[in-house]
Amino acid sequence: MEIFIEPIGKLVNEFSKLPGVGKKTAQRYAYKIIDMTEAEARAFADAIVGVKRKVKYCKVCGNFTEEEVCGVCRVRDKSVICVVKEPKDVAAIEKLREFKGVYHVLHGVIDPLSGIGPNDIRIRELLARIQEGDVKEVIVATNPDVSGDATAMYIAKLVKPLDVTVTRLAHGIPIGSEIEYTDDITLARAFVERNKI
Amino acid sequence: MEIFIEPIGKLVNEFSKLPGVGKKTAQRYAYKIIDMTEAEARAFADAIVGVKRKVKYCKVCGNFTEEEVCGVCRVRDKSVICVVKEPKDVAAIEKLREFKGVYHVLHGVIDPLSGIGPNDIRIRELLARIQEGDVKEVIVATNPDVSGDATAMYIAKLVKPLDVTVTRLAHGIPIGSEIEYTDDITLARAFVERNKI
Repeated sequence: MEIFIEPIGKLVNEFSKLPGVGKKTAQRYAYKIIDMTEAEARAFADAIVGVKRKVKYCKVCGNFTEEEVCGVCRVRDKSVICVVKEPKDVAAIEKLREFKGVYHVLHGVIDPLSGIGPNDIRIRELLARIQEGDVKEVIVATNPDVSGDATAMYIAKLVKPLDVTVTRLAHGIPIGSEIEYTDDITLARAFVERNKI
Repeated sequence: MEIFIEPIGKLVNEFSKLPGVGKKTAQRYAYKIIDMTEAEARAFADAIVGVKRKVKYCKVCGNFTEEEVCGVCRVRDKSVICVVKEPKDVAAIEKLREFKGVYHVLHGVIDPLSGIGPNDIRIRELLARIQEGDVKEVIVATNPDVSGDATAMYIAKLVKPLDVTVTRLAHGIPIGSEIEYTDDITLARAFVERNKI
């Protein structure tokens, strides 16, 4: 005898596909759905199908959009482009409400070990944008890891000759944390990137 | 400008309704859905709607079922009834593959502070089952807290006069844990419920 009847087992299985969700958590989620009204469950299901049907990639920056060109690309300062790995990085930066420029989502980073070269991510599209507009600065906001750094270096090499400033987000000790507990690599980096006060 | 376009915001909002899911986790789940194929997302949505459409409560025990009467009630030993608070407790016990009897899901416990009295949970139905069949034992497996204990006592008072043994799951030190780290209430309970060896 199965522990779950088929429709519940199926839903537990679907929830288990979400990142970081094990059987136990998936089960809790499934029970929550069973407790919902029919209309609530229907709204949930519609949101899932809706996101697949409506969300496309902006043909300029590669971020999520419902239109051809996203809201950021349509109205914001095009002279500064912030280059990120994934759409979720755009969301993280937008939350700050600090950056006034536009984005360029690479949809990946150069990672030879996984067989991802410069042509597999949207670097060509970035160069095309720079060549056609008056871009003054490219801020590379890839993650501070091996492939993120390699991608930043690669982009810098291509973009600098086009007379565009290329910058990279600062690395260092996170605000509020302590030197004692900062990992070696970050601490070393904080020394290298130290600023005059 | 919103951080998320409308269909993503909607889905993040839906995922946030799941127990223990905050905005950040909901966002990760939403991105996962976007990464799925159309067919995968459709299967997910169908599982949600399906569970609401297909899952009913067994008219005998009150557990989840697709039929009128659940698989457990149809085939198992009806002389022992295990009384639990919720369907998820049935799943937890079934996983052990030890208990061979049937269940009775109360769908709640007596909790005067929340205005839940004996008539608000399925106690009447339990008594009816006992009166019509040859039940030998009722195992009360409500949680070891105030309302779980109160419910167990209430059921015992009603069921014992019907010449049925009423038992309650043992409380004590969890297997593998240490006396030093056992909380006071559990430890005191372990003394009271100590067994001859």
